[in-house]
Amino acid sequence: MIRAGVIGATGYAGAELVRILAGHPRVELTRITSRQYEGRPYSQIYPCFKAVVDLTCKGYDADTMARNADVVFTALPHKLPMEIVPGLLEKGIKVVDLSADFRFGDAGIYEAHYQPHTARHLLKRAVYGLTEVYGAEISAARLVGNPGCYPTSLLLPLIPLLRRDLIDPTSIIADAKSGVSGAGRAPSLGTHHCEVNEALKAYKVNAHRHTPEMETVISREAGRAVAISFTPHLIPMTRGMLTTLYAGLAPGVTETEVRHALEDTYAEQPFVRVCAQGEFPNTIHVKGTNFCDIGFGVDQRTSRLIVVSVIDNLVKGAAGQAVQNMNVMLGWPQETGLLAPPYPL
Amino acid sequence: MIRAGVIGATGYAGAELVRILAGHPRVELTRITSRQYEGRPYSQIYPCFKAVVDLTCKGYDADTMARNADVVFTALPHKLPMEIVPGLLEKGIKVVDLSADFRFGDAGIYEAHYQPHTARHLLKRAVYGLTEVYGAEISAARLVGNPGCYPTSLLLPLIPLLRRDLIDPTSIIADAKSGVSGAGRAPSLGTHHCEVNEALKAYKVNAHRHTPEMETVISREAGRAVAISFTPHLIPMTRGMLTTLYAGLAPGVTETEVRHALEDTYAEQPFVRVCAQGEFPNTIHVKGTNFCDIGFGVDQRTSRLIVVSVIDNLVKGAAGQAVQNMNVMLGWPQETGLLAPPYPL
Amino acid sequence: MIRAGVIGATGYAGAELVRILAGHPRVELTRITSRQYEGRPYSQIYPCFKAVVDLTCKGYDADTMARNADVVFTALPHKLPMEIVPGLLEKGIKVVDLSADFRFGDAGIYEAHYQPHTARHLLKRAVYGLTEVYGAEISAARLVGNPGCYPTSLLLPLIPLLRRDLIDPTSIIADAKSGVSGAGRAPSLGTHHCEVNEALKAYKVNAHRHTPEMETVISREAGRAVAISFTPHLIPMTRGMLTTLYAGLAPGVTETEVRHALEDTYAEQPFVRVCAQGEFPNTIHVKGTNFCDIGFGVDQRTSRLIVVSVIDNLVKGAAGQAVQNMNVMLGWPQETGLLAPPYPL
Amino acid sequence: MIRAGVIGATGYAGAELVRILAGHPRVELTRITSRQYEGRPYSQIYPCFKAVVDLTCKGYDADTMARNADVVFTALPHKLPMEIVPGLLEKGIKVVDLSADFRFGDAGIYEAHYQPHTARHLLKRAVYGLTEVYGAEISAARLVGNPGCYPTSLLLPLIPLLRRDLIDPTSIIADAKSGVSGAGRAPSLGTHHCEVNEALKAYKVNAHRHTPEMETVISREAGRAVAISFTPHLIPMTRGMLTTLYAGLAPGVTETEVRHALEDTYAEQPFVRVCAQGEFPNTIHVKGTNFCDIGFGVDQRTSRLIVVSVIDNLVKGAAGQAVQNMNVMLGWPQETGLLAPPYPL
Repeated sequence: MIRAGVIGATGYAGAELVRILAGHPRVELTRITSRQYEGRPYSQIYPCFKAVVDLTCKGYDADTMARNADVVFTALPHKLPMEIVPGLLEKGIKVVDLSADFRFGDAGIYEAHYQPHTARHLLKRAVYGLTEVYGAEISAARLVGNPGCYPTSLLLPLIPLLRRDLIDPTSIIADAKSGVSGAGRAPSLGTHHCEVNEALKAYKVNAHRHTPEMETVISREAGRAVAISFTPHLIPMTRGMLTTLYAGLAPGVTETEVRHALEDTYAEQPFVRVCAQGEFPNTIHVKGTNFCDIGFGVDQRTSRLIVVSVIDNLVKGAAGQAVQNMNVMLGWPQETGLLAPPYPL
Repeated sequence: MIRAGVIGATGYAGAELVRILAGHPRVELTRITSRQYEGRPYSQIYPCFKAVVDLTCKGYDADTMARNADVVFTALPHKLPMEIVPGLLEKGIKVVDLSADFRFGDAGIYEAHYQPHTARHLLKRAVYGLTEVYGAEISAARLVGNPGCYPTSLLLPLIPLLRRDLIDPTSIIADAKSGVSGAGRAPSLGTHHCEVNEALKAYKVNAHRHTPEMETVISREAGRAVAISFTPHLIPMTRGMLTTLYAGLAPGVTETEVRHALEDTYAEQPFVRVCAQGEFPNTIHVKGTNFCDIGFGVDQRTSRLIVVSVIDNLVKGAAGQAVQNMNVMLGWPQETGLLAPPYPL
Repeated sequence: MIRAGVIGATGYAGAELVRILAGHPRVELTRITSRQYEGRPYSQIYPCFKAVVDLTCKGYDADTMARNADVVFTALPHKLPMEIVPGLLEKGIKVVDLSADFRFGDAGIYEAHYQPHTARHLLKRAVYGLTEVYGAEISAARLVGNPGCYPTSLLLPLIPLLRRDLIDPTSIIADAKSGVSGAGRAPSLGTHHCEVNEALKAYKVNAHRHTPEMETVISREAGRAVAISFTPHLIPMTRGMLTTLYAGLAPGVTETEVRHALEDTYAEQPFVRVCAQGEFPNTIHVKGTNFCDIGFGVDQRTSRLIVVSVIDNLVKGAAGQAVQNMNVMLGWPQETGLLAPPYPL
Repeated sequence: MIRAGVIGATGYAGAELVRILAGHPRVELTRITSRQYEGRPYSQIYPCFKAVVDLTCKGYDADTMARNADVVFTALPHKLPMEIVPGLLEKGIKVVDLSADFRFGDAGIYEAHYQPHTARHLLKRAVYGLTEVYGAEISAARLVGNPGCYPTSLLLPLIPLLRRDLIDPTSIIADAKSGVSGAGRAPSLGTHHCEVNEALKAYKVNAHRHTPEMETVISREAGRAVAISFTPHLIPMTRGMLTTLYAGLAPGVTETEVRHALEDTYAEQPFVRVCAQGEFPNTIHVKGTNFCDIGFGVDQRTSRLIVVSVIDNLVKGAAGQAVQNMNVMLGWPQETGLLAPPYPL
């Protein structure tokens, strides 16, 4: 058994990590930390875990964590991980960081959208954890920057199309919709039930920090600098993310070529399910799972491709992909511990 | 007082008509019909109206309706209105039809997406009831084809931009999101609470019948045949519609020009509210109202304009705009009876 | 026109007051205050009111308020009103207070559950504003203590039964359910969408401060000290309150006697609607209205009466009843400005 | 591996059975039936199971089922199981029936509330499957009548109190609240999203068919005929059930005795979690699990006990308890396959 620790275990991504790791057949979850709830049994914070997870929230201490864990997940707001992760790596711990701190190879891009980076030397060593795409590098990594939820939902369908030059990268428009859990557990007027329920809005139009993350990867895959349009929306539901992608087809490209690109790329991938022709996915079909479902259609009249992808923002968009990355880093089958049958409703 | 009748009063759009007309200061709601609930007090079907609306559902009969009403709203599935409306017009009744039957000047387009049209002779006389845009024609009309909800949410922001050539019409992409009431009151698996709640999907991708309706108007306003991309999504909430529009800006166009186009066009219009710079609308702000709120931003990097509009699909998207059209047809201020202060949550 | 002011206009009850007063035909809403949002246009806080309510949030100042208003609503947390109200009364203003500060004739009971009362001298002059029951006293009052939402939902059905000795007062059990807006607008983990949505709990079991308020009135009406069981529950919806009452029938009492008690008592009351036999109310039927709908059934096998009442917690449970009380204080028909037809869904 | 079949696999309880059995380490789910969807892959009906459950819906045939399964779950509307189950038992199959058909030892009570019973001879052999209470009999049974969701939520907390004479059985009042999935998957106006969402009602007041089921068990446990008051309510959420129980304490009974009764009874039971003093359960804490969480408080002033229990109506209230019963029937630890860590939100 590998021993795992979670730093920041009481946020929503942290709680999903606890859920998944508690059910993982090759992992023992040994240590969880929380500044806010230090000293309290985890099942007081999340009573669903009473009689399921018998752990107490600890304060964070690098030495103690390193003695108790072989792999550590940092589920913290950005800025904190770059302070903590270097010390863990030095002690030989493998780390999957769920924040933005290690997603960018280029510190300049990070700093333009976040703040000064204090662990720049690690950016070269960190691997971007989009498992299906960068699995080979992840398997050799000691530090993985786990992708954002929006980037995951968008890059999985796009990359196969970019690699085969099936779409015009400059035409990409991503209209994304997320459940409220993506906003985290901290109370605010923006997550107050009465403000969210029976309401629908776009937010951070032209200004979301996941845009540079997505564009970095798209540009690399397209082989040239690409700017996209990305608009996130807040949906009155707890979990789930749906991204609707619009892109101009390259001249002469057929629906069949699009299908082949997606199906070929993900033929051996357990967590990408491509919908049959004429079918489109629904977030409820991936709730609680690590799946990304993808449907698409060609609009002949406008020569545009419309792709719809869904993920659970907390699982494939956060904790699930993090565990998937851990599996790959440890040389295990990537689906280990991630195939619990989902709630059908 | 003008006497009004509603045919199909027990569907959701019908119920909103009843609500608005019951509070209208210059209208007496005299007659409501329902095949399904004939003979039953309306307040049994909608108990909210107990002690508020004292009417009984009647079967439909043209003579009786014509004796009891000066203006009639047909809130029926398409196909039925084209059978009923000719008879009402012959008797001198003014009609606002909420179905698709009289939205198309060209019977061929209608028939390509619905079924054979049996009242083609009226299509020339019917006016498309997008009140803010076609008010002059509506004021002279005896028959108004009330716009669909999606077309309303999309055309109000687009038309001022098209008229001033600020955007490339061939680049228009509309990603629309609707509450469940848009699907009507008939039970189906697709409206079952457990299938809709905590779920999110696109539907009728590249295949929604509102597309030809929108394209007809856009093409007329753009002065050339235009095809757009339109993708509707179903949102787990009862009321509300949000449409996110993407379009390439014409060369050299600035954000200020876009603002002027919208603000100038709607300066005298009571139901269009243009958001301040950097602000975007939320469906909860228009719930139960006839407002259309519009926000926008220019994405300098992609030279695209992103516009977000919200309406209440049952009000500005159906019953409210229908009453607004009635007001205009009768020579009244268009906002008459439509300014009840909205529920803030 | 009477001039009205609202102190604490940006909470949820305050916003409902603004909505109702903005549509009131005999009231001009002249002044609204908010500490948190002082200086900001009200329509920035509640954008639904853009182009509807053209007021700016002011800081509170007794002199300015008294110069600008004839009647004032205090929609503040308890403790603040007892500091503010005395000054307003001295200046001749009529006041409806929505907090608990003036609901108790007996300062001792108030102090046992809240804190020391600093305006005890006013408790004798304040009238408990359950309009249908205490209308005569309200019409002569200068200060009304507006009832809590739970007490309103419970007392309206109970009082007619108590007055006719139809039930055993010691057997009363009230199982109440409230939407989330009852918790107010301040963000907290308890109102976070992800904590409330798809969740259901009882709270403050045996410990809710509305219990002494209810018992005070019940005891007065029953003519003896009565303790009841009261359990509130939080329901994942924004508005609405449903209270299920259980009580042992007095010996020999029939269902018909219960019906007569309710129907006779409320025959002339516009806002109480008694359901037909076998029918029970639904909160959606009173959403946004000042109605209280009441259904009941006799369980022959246990000789118990089960009564179900519904109100909108923000309207009949707060702002609507407050305006109803104002109407009565001013000698107007109690329903003035309160009969806007409700949203059917 | 034991082979299991599910008859009626496409309803909501059926889908939960499929989920749980697909993850069960000692069961192979070999055959599922559906009249409505015969011939279609299960993952078309529930796309969440794509790549998870590779089964096709079959029509029902006793011989084929008996050849393919050792244990069968009947997840059908009442009346159908009594036609099917006798044939299965004759072929040596063990059966857990989720309908009401085999919950009553006394055919007369069943027939008074359902319809004539055509397999009366089996009622003596069937065991009522409240696992924690009747485990010994279940372990010897070949046919288990799986309890209703409401009875489960109510009987688990009540039986320990009745057995120790801590409450007056004639004083029991149960106010129960259920999510919408309890109404099943068939579309109806009563499950239409727009009718359920933001709505709250009591239903079948004094008339729910779970009442005789509960009273039968309560009477047996209390040693005398007992009638209770039971009122179900419909809550706008998908899953979850909360029951609030009120009962008069027997003279002199203390809170400690109540706690001992509950904690002693369920000390060795993995699925009953008794809350700490002053804490009450929330349905979200048992979502997707087989747990029943119980909290309680004594109201000294009225000498009443208030108990709140929560379950997931589809799991402990249906499919989960059914699998728990199968485990017991097969001599396995009752929690086998039922301990997947739950979704924390």
